[in-house]
Amino acid sequence: MSSATTPSSSHGHLWSVDEHLEDILSTVHPLDPIELQLLDAQGCVLVEDVTVPVSLPPFDNSSMDGYAVRVADVAGASEEFPAVLTVIGDVAAGQSEQPTVRPGQAARIMTGAPLPPGAEAVVPVEWTDGGLGAGPVSTMTAHSAAPEGASGEVRVHRAAQERAHVRARGSDVKAGDRALSAGTVLGPPQISLLAAIGRGTVRVRPRPRVVVVSTGSELVQPGEPLAQGQIYDSNSFALTAAARDAGAIAYRVGAVADDAETLRSTIEDQLIRADLVVTTGGVSVGAYDVVKEALSAIGDPDDEDGIGAGGGVEFRKLAMQPGKPQGFGSIGPDHTPLLALPGNPVSSYVSFELFVRPAIRSLMGLPAGQVHRPQVRAKLTADKALTSPAGRRQFLRGAHDPATGTVTPVGGAGSHLVAALAHADALIVVPEATTSVEPGTQVDVVLLS
Amino acid sequence: MSSATTPSSSHGHLWSVDEHLEDILSTVHPLDPIELQLLDAQGCVLVEDVTVPVSLPPFDNSSMDGYAVRVADVAGASEEFPAVLTVIGDVAAGQSEQPTVRPGQAARIMTGAPLPPGAEAVVPVEWTDGGLGAGPVSTMTAHSAAPEGASGEVRVHRAAQERAHVRARGSDVKAGDRALSAGTVLGPPQISLLAAIGRGTVRVRPRPRVVVVSTGSELVQPGEPLAQGQIYDSNSFALTAAARDAGAIAYRVGAVADDAETLRSTIEDQLIRADLVVTTGGVSVGAYDVVKEALSAIGDPDDEDGIGAGGGVEFRKLAMQPGKPQGFGSIGPDHTPLLALPGNPVSSYVSFELFVRPAIRSLMGLPAGQVHRPQVRAKLTADKALTSPAGRRQFLRGAHDPATGTVTPVGGAGSHLVAALAHADALIVVPEATTSVEPGTQVDVVLLS
Repeated sequence: MSSATTPSSSHGHLWSVDEHLEDILSTVHPLDPIELQLLDAQGCVLVEDVTVPVSLPPFDNSSMDGYAVRVADVAGASEEFPAVLTVIGDVAAGQSEQPTVRPGQAARIMTGAPLPPGAEAVVPVEWTDGGLGAGPVSTMTAHSAAPEGASGEVRVHRAAQERAHVRARGSDVKAGDRALSAGTVLGPPQISLLAAIGRGTVRVRPRPRVVVVSTGSELVQPGEPLAQGQIYDSNSFALTAAARDAGAIAYRVGAVADDAETLRSTIEDQLIRADLVVTTGGVSVGAYDVVKEALSAIGDPDDEDGIGAGGGVEFRKLAMQPGKPQGFGSIGPDHTPLLALPGNPVSSYVSFELFVRPAIRSLMGLPAGQVHRPQVRAKLTADKALTSPAGRRQFLRGAHDPATGTVTPVGGAGSHLVAALAHADALIVVPEATTSVEPGTQVDVVLLS
Repeated sequence: MSSATTPSSSHGHLWSVDEHLEDILSTVHPLDPIELQLLDAQGCVLVEDVTVPVSLPPFDNSSMDGYAVRVADVAGASEEFPAVLTVIGDVAAGQSEQPTVRPGQAARIMTGAPLPPGAEAVVPVEWTDGGLGAGPVSTMTAHSAAPEGASGEVRVHRAAQERAHVRARGSDVKAGDRALSAGTVLGPPQISLLAAIGRGTVRVRPRPRVVVVSTGSELVQPGEPLAQGQIYDSNSFALTAAARDAGAIAYRVGAVADDAETLRSTIEDQLIRADLVVTTGGVSVGAYDVVKEALSAIGDPDDEDGIGAGGGVEFRKLAMQPGKPQGFGSIGPDHTPLLALPGNPVSSYVSFELFVRPAIRSLMGLPAGQVHRPQVRAKLTADKALTSPAGRRQFLRGAHDPATGTVTPVGGAGSHLVAALAHADALIVVPEATTSVEPGTQVDVVLLS
């Protein structure tokens, strides 16, 4: 990691967006796997190849409610000339003992129940008189109301081919088959399959725990009154929500005042529950940039157990707008990765999308195609040309219309336009070398939802 | 609601998929709104128009770390002939008192800090000597390390236009503006805006609480040994995960044996935490179809407080495959909606996607476009024609490739192929009137992820 070799800051070099991202992704590795209960593993990445231990279905069973019969006994049966069979009992799902069906006999059988010995096919109840001695029925009588349905005689109105309405053992999956491969993301259908083959727990990479700390003596908790010169803390809320949305378990620590010692001890306290720390604010060139001040000394070889034991945090200038000042490195005895984002709400949100979200999704071990937001090309719809500073990659808030393949800027380029962000669903990317983009031009668009 | 007028069952009529869905959606209404803490409202639908109480930013403030100056004092300044100004102090963000900048003076100012009285523009620190008396600097010295930076003299190397690097009060949103409209789904950027304008809580429709109960005496909890005739309960896991994925708070009750009294009392117990009850199994025409047996008597006017007080549950046959037998109605004193799905894992999962997911999303109050899974047209890629029974809408598991606009069937039509489901990401829809679909035909596809 470059930050280990360049202790605190590199004022000269302007990092490209790609260089900064590459540094992050080459440093942040997938979390160690743990065994989780099936429902706790939802959304997580499987780290084992799962083999089917027992074939599904585990036994031949009926796909209908009806009667289990021998084929010869119902050959040529019709409503006019029914086959009359003796009902020897019920075969319900979950019943451990089955009666043997001998010539001239039938067992009343329920969907999913094992095909009893001797039976070769199932005749649906709708093709019989249901044991009532009259015409065809549409349903069985409930056993609880009419237990006599499990005995007596049944008239079968149609013939049945061998194995008709029988689901064969192993017809879904066979013992020894690969059910799911390592790397699969566990959604509801995968959880369904794992449960069906009897897996109560599964080995996955856990969701990363992300601690979000905003900094700034001007920040007030929403809902409280604002004094002169104060603003509301929005970053800790926005980034906690965004971290959850990315798949993390997110902890909002809230706003810390611009005091290096307080910030340092706050972060040190939080390390116990952090796989990733995200801060906002205090990373620029001011005299009160507390994150920079508190974390520049990280990497102290004498501080083996505290926050200072990490690889160090490097503060950089990026060739991007918004989001020029950024910090990245690792802190504490476990070298917990830390991303220090700028404090402006739009800058921090765009930085989250570009850098923190991929870091979270890398910690989850997601496949490469799911680490980043999808990117598409779209035609710029705008009243006038977009302008962008030379040498900076600009990210403008936009509204993308997939139906027409167009994107329209929302709000201006100002990095404080949090209102515009709330009405955007995409970022329009203006490359470093481009200073003006005419309406009608094809542009790169990062889709945010 | 039709189930109120047709108490328990309607054997004759075959319901279309659309009729059943319409009956559900006309019955299930959005939950009553509640006031939630901002982060608890993530993913929820706003029910109020939110107005901006105070303009953002709430005061003119600096967009750079630099010096707040009077325009006339820096007119014509250059590196060779700098303007030399007396530094009267620091203006940091969150500081309540600001010094007044008089002619010949400058205040050192931090990003986000209020523009002090008298100042007309901000000069970035990079355009000054930072008070050090040498050439241009790239950063301020930290106040904690060098408090003298807040006094002394600064050399300014460039002129500044009025309001340069000043973000005007109200330039983001103005007091009285509409911030967000009722009906907005609250994602991270909307939470950011709400926090920024000081909203600590917000009025939204809560996430629905969904209770999932599977039924079947053959069902064993995954991880436990299987005896003869038993299978693992997968439905309660799959549907709990799917309900969460749809936006609900889902409670997995697990498997209940095929005993009507036990099932009835289990569901009655759960009503206290249910906005919607989903059962699987026991809805067909067998003699042990416990859900049907337990819930057919609902709607008893004498049972005012118990489960029997609801509008009634109707059991139907639907013109679809898989998923023919379905139950829908309401139970208990609050007329809690209940969907009774078939027990086969693929049938129950497809039924969930078609009926339960829209019900959950209707309870959330989501806009019409977000209630259903997206549906697209795609070209069928297959070795041979798909066959489908006449008069049934068939839903086949498929893999959709958006790049080529094609869809390929995964596994067969058998409703027990849970393994195929785990490798599908779409449902191929074969309409009622179609019995065969040739490869190359355009088909409707429901996208599952």
